[in-house]
Amino acid sequence: MKFVYAFSEAHTLGKEQLGGKGAGLSAMTALGLPVPPGFTVTTEACRSYHMQRQTPASLWQEVQTALQQLEHQTGKAFGDPKNPLLLSVRSGARFSMPGMMDTILNLGLTDDVVEGLSVLTGDEGFAYDAYRRLIQMFADVVLGISRHHFETALEDLKLSREVQDDLALSGQDLKELVGQYKRIFKRHAGFEFPQSPQFQLQEAILAVFKSWGNRRAVTYRKLHHIPEHLGTAANVQAMVFGNLGENSGTGVGFTRDPITGTPEVFGEFLLNAQGEDVVAGIRTPQPLSELQTHLPEAHQQLLDTAKLLEEHFLDMQDFEFTIEQGKLFMLQTRAGKRSARAAFKIAHDLVKAGKISKADAVSRIDLASLEQLLYPHPVEGHGQKAVLKGLPASPGTASGVVVFSADEAVEVSRTRPCILVTPETSPEDIHGMASARGILTARGGMTSHAAVVARGMGCPAVVGAGDLQVDREAGVLRIHGQQIRAGETITLNGSTGEVFLGSLPLQEGVLEAEAFEVLSWADGLRRLEVRANADTPQDARRARENGAQGIGLCRTEHMFFSEERIPLVRQMILARTAQEELEALRLLQDLQRRDFEAILLAMDGLPVTIRLMDPPLHEFLPQMSDLLVQVTKLSQQRSETNEEEYQEVLELLERVKQLHEVNPMMGLRGARLGITRPSIICMQVHALAQATQNLLNAGHKPRPEIMIPLTGTAEELAYVRQIVEEVLSSHDLHLPIGSMIEVPRACLVSRQLTRSADFLSFGTNDLTQMTYGYSRDDASRFLGTYVEKGLLEFDPFTRLDEAGVGSLIQLAVQDARKERPGIKLGICGEHGGERHSIAFFHRVGLDYVSCSPFRLLAARLSAAQAALKTGHEEAVLA
Amino acid sequence: MKFVYAFSEAHTLGKEQLGGKGAGLSAMTALGLPVPPGFTVTTEACRSYHMQRQTPASLWQEVQTALQQLEHQTGKAFGDPKNPLLLSVRSGARFSMPGMMDTILNLGLTDDVVEGLSVLTGDEGFAYDAYRRLIQMFADVVLGISRHHFETALEDLKLSREVQDDLALSGQDLKELVGQYKRIFKRHAGFEFPQSPQFQLQEAILAVFKSWGNRRAVTYRKLHHIPEHLGTAANVQAMVFGNLGENSGTGVGFTRDPITGTPEVFGEFLLNAQGEDVVAGIRTPQPLSELQTHLPEAHQQLLDTAKLLEEHFLDMQDFEFTIEQGKLFMLQTRAGKRSARAAFKIAHDLVKAGKISKADAVSRIDLASLEQLLYPHPVEGHGQKAVLKGLPASPGTASGVVVFSADEAVEVSRTRPCILVTPETSPEDIHGMASARGILTARGGMTSHAAVVARGMGCPAVVGAGDLQVDREAGVLRIHGQQIRAGETITLNGSTGEVFLGSLPLQEGVLEAEAFEVLSWADGLRRLEVRANADTPQDARRARENGAQGIGLCRTEHMFFSEERIPLVRQMILARTAQEELEALRLLQDLQRRDFEAILLAMDGLPVTIRLMDPPLHEFLPQMSDLLVQVTKLSQQRSETNEEEYQEVLELLERVKQLHEVNPMMGLRGARLGITRPSIICMQVHALAQATQNLLNAGHKPRPEIMIPLTGTAEELAYVRQIVEEVLSSHDLHLPIGSMIEVPRACLVSRQLTRSADFLSFGTNDLTQMTYGYSRDDASRFLGTYVEKGLLEFDPFTRLDEAGVGSLIQLAVQDARKERPGIKLGICGEHGGERHSIAFFHRVGLDYVSCSPFRLLAARLSAAQAALKTGHEEAVLA
Repeated sequence: MKFVYAFSEAHTLGKEQLGGKGAGLSAMTALGLPVPPGFTVTTEACRSYHMQRQTPASLWQEVQTALQQLEHQTGKAFGDPKNPLLLSVRSGARFSMPGMMDTILNLGLTDDVVEGLSVLTGDEGFAYDAYRRLIQMFADVVLGISRHHFETALEDLKLSREVQDDLALSGQDLKELVGQYKRIFKRHAGFEFPQSPQFQLQEAILAVFKSWGNRRAVTYRKLHHIPEHLGTAANVQAMVFGNLGENSGTGVGFTRDPITGTPEVFGEFLLNAQGEDVVAGIRTPQPLSELQTHLPEAHQQLLDTAKLLEEHFLDMQDFEFTIEQGKLFMLQTRAGKRSARAAFKIAHDLVKAGKISKADAVSRIDLASLEQLLYPHPVEGHGQKAVLKGLPASPGTASGVVVFSADEAVEVSRTRPCILVTPETSPEDIHGMASARGILTARGGMTSHAAVVARGMGCPAVVGAGDLQVDREAGVLRIHGQQIRAGETITLNGSTGEVFLGSLPLQEGVLEAEAFEVLSWADGLRRLEVRANADTPQDARRARENGAQGIGLCRTEHMFFSEERIPLVRQMILARTAQEELEALRLLQDLQRRDFEAILLAMDGLPVTIRLMDPPLHEFLPQMSDLLVQVTKLSQQRSETNEEEYQEVLELLERVKQLHEVNPMMGLRGARLGITRPSIICMQVHALAQATQNLLNAGHKPRPEIMIPLTGTAEELAYVRQIVEEVLSSHDLHLPIGSMIEVPRACLVSRQLTRSADFLSFGTNDLTQMTYGYSRDDASRFLGTYVEKGLLEFDPFTRLDEAGVGSLIQLAVQDARKERPGIKLGICGEHGGERHSIAFFHRVGLDYVSCSPFRLLAARLSAAQAALKTGHEEAVLA
Repeated sequence: MKFVYAFSEAHTLGKEQLGGKGAGLSAMTALGLPVPPGFTVTTEACRSYHMQRQTPASLWQEVQTALQQLEHQTGKAFGDPKNPLLLSVRSGARFSMPGMMDTILNLGLTDDVVEGLSVLTGDEGFAYDAYRRLIQMFADVVLGISRHHFETALEDLKLSREVQDDLALSGQDLKELVGQYKRIFKRHAGFEFPQSPQFQLQEAILAVFKSWGNRRAVTYRKLHHIPEHLGTAANVQAMVFGNLGENSGTGVGFTRDPITGTPEVFGEFLLNAQGEDVVAGIRTPQPLSELQTHLPEAHQQLLDTAKLLEEHFLDMQDFEFTIEQGKLFMLQTRAGKRSARAAFKIAHDLVKAGKISKADAVSRIDLASLEQLLYPHPVEGHGQKAVLKGLPASPGTASGVVVFSADEAVEVSRTRPCILVTPETSPEDIHGMASARGILTARGGMTSHAAVVARGMGCPAVVGAGDLQVDREAGVLRIHGQQIRAGETITLNGSTGEVFLGSLPLQEGVLEAEAFEVLSWADGLRRLEVRANADTPQDARRARENGAQGIGLCRTEHMFFSEERIPLVRQMILARTAQEELEALRLLQDLQRRDFEAILLAMDGLPVTIRLMDPPLHEFLPQMSDLLVQVTKLSQQRSETNEEEYQEVLELLERVKQLHEVNPMMGLRGARLGITRPSIICMQVHALAQATQNLLNAGHKPRPEIMIPLTGTAEELAYVRQIVEEVLSSHDLHLPIGSMIEVPRACLVSRQLTRSADFLSFGTNDLTQMTYGYSRDDASRFLGTYVEKGLLEFDPFTRLDEAGVGSLIQLAVQDARKERPGIKLGICGEHGGERHSIAFFHRVGLDYVSCSPFRLLAARLSAAQAALKTGHEEAVLA
């Protein structure tokens, strides 16, 4: 096995072996661009080093051979004071990664060589400055000696010489400084700065390898799901100098504007400087366009190079260069980071120019940035510091005055935008949540009520902000010592979880025409159908605009929570006689029919999956604790005047107690409710049937489907299905009837369920809850700790847990298809809009995903990317 | 295929084809016993009839052939007035089953034949009485005409003749009655009573087949898990008459005393009567021993026959006989129903006599009756009617005065036995539950707190009695209209779910020496190890007495609920400083160490699985609703004098609110608690380590194992294991560390879990909860409806759901063994003591089951029976 490749022989190898930087350098070399010669030590050497705790036997021999070739090529010799070859060593992994060793420059300098260099260049200052930099970087990177010790010495020297700029120091000054650096080095290292160039080089390469295991790098890989085994390459390259006077310089650039995607070279440079000076930010760089006036030839060469790079890589490039005494050298090239807007623009341009395929364009769009693009976000560089951090529950940014209750939110929102701040939200707060611009809660996780509702409404939300104390009575919220009163303005960023005092300048999320066109290409490439979770006609319309192919989940009970309906719902629940119940049901049926008509109309011609009543009935009643307090108060002030009220509240309390459940999530709800109290679902099916008939009569094409929630046995599904069918047949209707799969058992008996189901839809929120045994209302107490301690790689309510929940889904899909190959299978949980989860759903062969209208665009793109990835993998395997 | 077999040719066929009755008749025929000749139409014919909606083509031809043979054998002819052959038709399935057609007698009688019979016997009364009975039975069984119409006519006749007894009616009377019966028949059937004997016979056989599909029979099969496809046989047999005068008679008997198992013939008879007269109970039968004085020869023949039957069948038999004019005929034999006591005695006797093997003896014991035997139960025939019915949550019967709170129970139990009646119980009621003789709750299912604790304590309990209203304040419980006040006596039967007013006479559960010996044989036959769930030294001792091979589940938190410890536990939970927490922990550690010492000592030499703290912390704090009421009251009467109390309660309320969970079952508990608040489990492990060291120093052999509850990911198990190992190594101890599998996900990743587990134990209570999504505290609201509507075959908390929960367990076992073939796998949920579940655990290859000390005997037996069954199946397959 060969571990070392010269840039000139490596361009057929990929990033896996060369790392990103090495691959870029060898590609540019092959393109005939001016790259300082050098070689790459492959990632394989790094892997081998980490696995066997030593470098491969042949490694140093290969390095020697490559070095000799390099000496031959440059006509210089490593460690030769008369004609010294100086080297840089840089790490370069498959994915760029903060925390890894970056660079050591000027390797090969020793006390002898620096003197030779001084003579050779006639510039003592340059030579000793280079030596000084080497000592400091080597100490830092190889031995972990803080830069601080060296920087203090430099500052002291500048102070004593009364100069501001390093460049103003004389050669003698720098020579003295090197002496001081060497003393500092010895004091901390316990030995003299090594005078063997070979030793310097070996240690630098080893430092690159070791830095793969740095804590920061490990954490970064964990957070970004970069495999641990990849390893990094090390690039050894002949030095070129941008600090050899005013006809030298260094800079970075993009082949396009990374914000807009416009095809014009974009970047900045510094004359008479090395790369690290640009990074350090002591001097202010100039825009690249100004290079033309200083070094017009190099500038033109750079423009030509940029064009060539984009032609070659068929993507926007981010490059680094150095100009040594008028001569341009390219030091790096890679795909450039870009704004979401630019990403679409670039992909679109390249397709239009016939450079890349539509599939390539679609697979290149970074999903996170698309999502970012869709929501208003703070203008970059606003410079404010967050006062609080919670979970980024629903993306987007909102500013408004603080209110503490749903009613207040409704009131205040008439005149001013407001942010609803509560310990947590409940279904009774819906009207307030709909009025507020943003929602902030102290408790709850990524799928708490607040989070789910907020995402569904596209309303920015930060939840589970543990440091937040809400004192509703005093009208104050406290964050550590700080107090914020009702009426004061805050800004929350639901994409990051940050909360700021006052308003922040915002910019709207906009999608340009190019983006829409790229998304339409995505539609042509995906296999998964994309539907929306939508409960209202407004949601349905928005979903349709965003390309939904139907509604995958319409939660009918959400229609009951509105202020004017809840008294009716309570009358139905608390009815003492069949007559009372019937009256309430009749009124509700009429309202529900109208809801259905509007939603079906908005989705005319597309399927609309209506889920029958799911939540436990006590969700519609007042809180038991509120009633308890009320009763206690009334009983203490009991008199003739309030006797009636007391009795009334007491009775209500009794009913609420009867319906109270210890674990409502696993209680009397879903199909169980349909079986023990069928009147409610009968009413719903009647309403749906009437709505359907009315629309059919008016010449429309309603396509309702009925979904029975929370079934866990074939028997209960068959039972409820029969109830539904009887009602439908009284209207002479036949509609598809299916079931929502929300408990693990349903996955285990999916084969039997298919006998009574025309479709099955996985409700992955509840399925995740029960598979893990994590109550989504309570899990925020430990999920944070779990992620922090590395016990969970990610929040399973946000991204589907493939090993657990996923394997249940896979089992269910296989079994269901065994029994009924053509059965329609989908998913309508929160995961329906998340890209890793969508990729999984694609792989296991679901027919559709359904997600919030606001995540539709992302879902369409993800579904296409998943299809492309699978296609690619299949092609590779074939 | 042959569908009809004469008794004399069928004894090599089994019950599957002949049914129980047919098999008994052919066996007796083969033994040379006096059986009236006849033939059996097989179950195969019935199955074929039900599947093809018609009888097999060859059936009636085969019946004709068999009939001719029968005529030949008896020298009589079917339908011949001069020498008539009369027949009975009886059903006989593999398992006897109420609701099926039982018998039609005297088939072959017509208007002509009855006259012939009258002449032949010289007894007009006998002949017309036989015809009358035929018409009535045929009308009832074949056409569904109510017996009532005929019985009224008979009663009217007896009234007009002024006689009490049928036998007092004259031949003429009966002849007239037959005329009336025929008119009644025609009125209801629409046609004359059929005069074709062949038609009568065919219809009777078809009626047997049809009755297999009767609603009552179907329900019975469902309830008793009898396969639907078996079908029934029909037995056609020459009539013999017990009503031909005082030297005739009929009776039933057992080869042994079915209550005690003593080997002496036991039974009763009636002279001059047919079988149905014994059943009807109009005349009182005499004990069989008295037959000696009436018909000594027949009596002696019967004793000899009984002996022969038991010798042949190697089991106690239950038989029917008829004596026709001094001659004995055997009409049926089958294994007799017996008391649990008799079951052991008989099995034991037969082994000792070398008749059957120990394995046979063990496999014959009916488990339900063993369980029954172990608990006190009402004396049979007490004749009282239950006033209330709930779920039979914990077997046994208890009488006592009604008390409404745990404190009252403690108080009252000092002087009188009491029954604790509450809406539901909570951990704070433990002391009261321990004092009460029985527990009755209005809410909760088979695994509610009350049920689990009661079973664990062997305390009879009826739970989820929905008709029960508990008015604690008024000190009254209401059942529909009825009121029962505190201090009144009730009796509850936890084996049946019945509640009675007043005391019932009870008999103690006792196990005789024979039973213990049979159980010890069982121990030699089982593969599954049997452990006990035990939390106290007393439980541990009882478990050891009952043959436990260790403790499979010791719930350490149960030690915290005692009255004197709970303040300390609260101090720990509510500690405001590390110092406060440490103090409480130190005191708790000392108490816990003593608990552990006592339990380990009681189980010296046997493994004791200690489960670390599992429940959420708020279970140890006062109820939020109680505190809310208290705070509200105090705030209304706020003054200087109670200000301090108010502030104290308010603060407590705040802490309780902070810990409050929406779904505590899926909240911060188990391993999650160990991770977020490790101080508690550290304390527990220190206490266990100290206890172990102390016992080792004293020369004992403690064998503790540590079980980490509620893990769902490999990462969290590894994390907690590390904490536990660190504490143990500070004591220089290494103990087995395993995990409890309670969430579905754990089953799906069992392979990964084994990397940090020395053993895995399935907690099937929680696993069932989460797999179904049934909260065991709330499911009683719909589980009853589900079972009633046939949506659930059984309560999955009582008997393991093999299709759902079972398939998860099977998956987990397979995966775990793939990774670590030798890993110890067990189960410690409620199902560990239930026989079907134990059979399943045996089949999937678990190593042990752990159950309540009171179910140990049943578990030992079940485990052996499961092993025998599997062995048998393997032998059959081999």
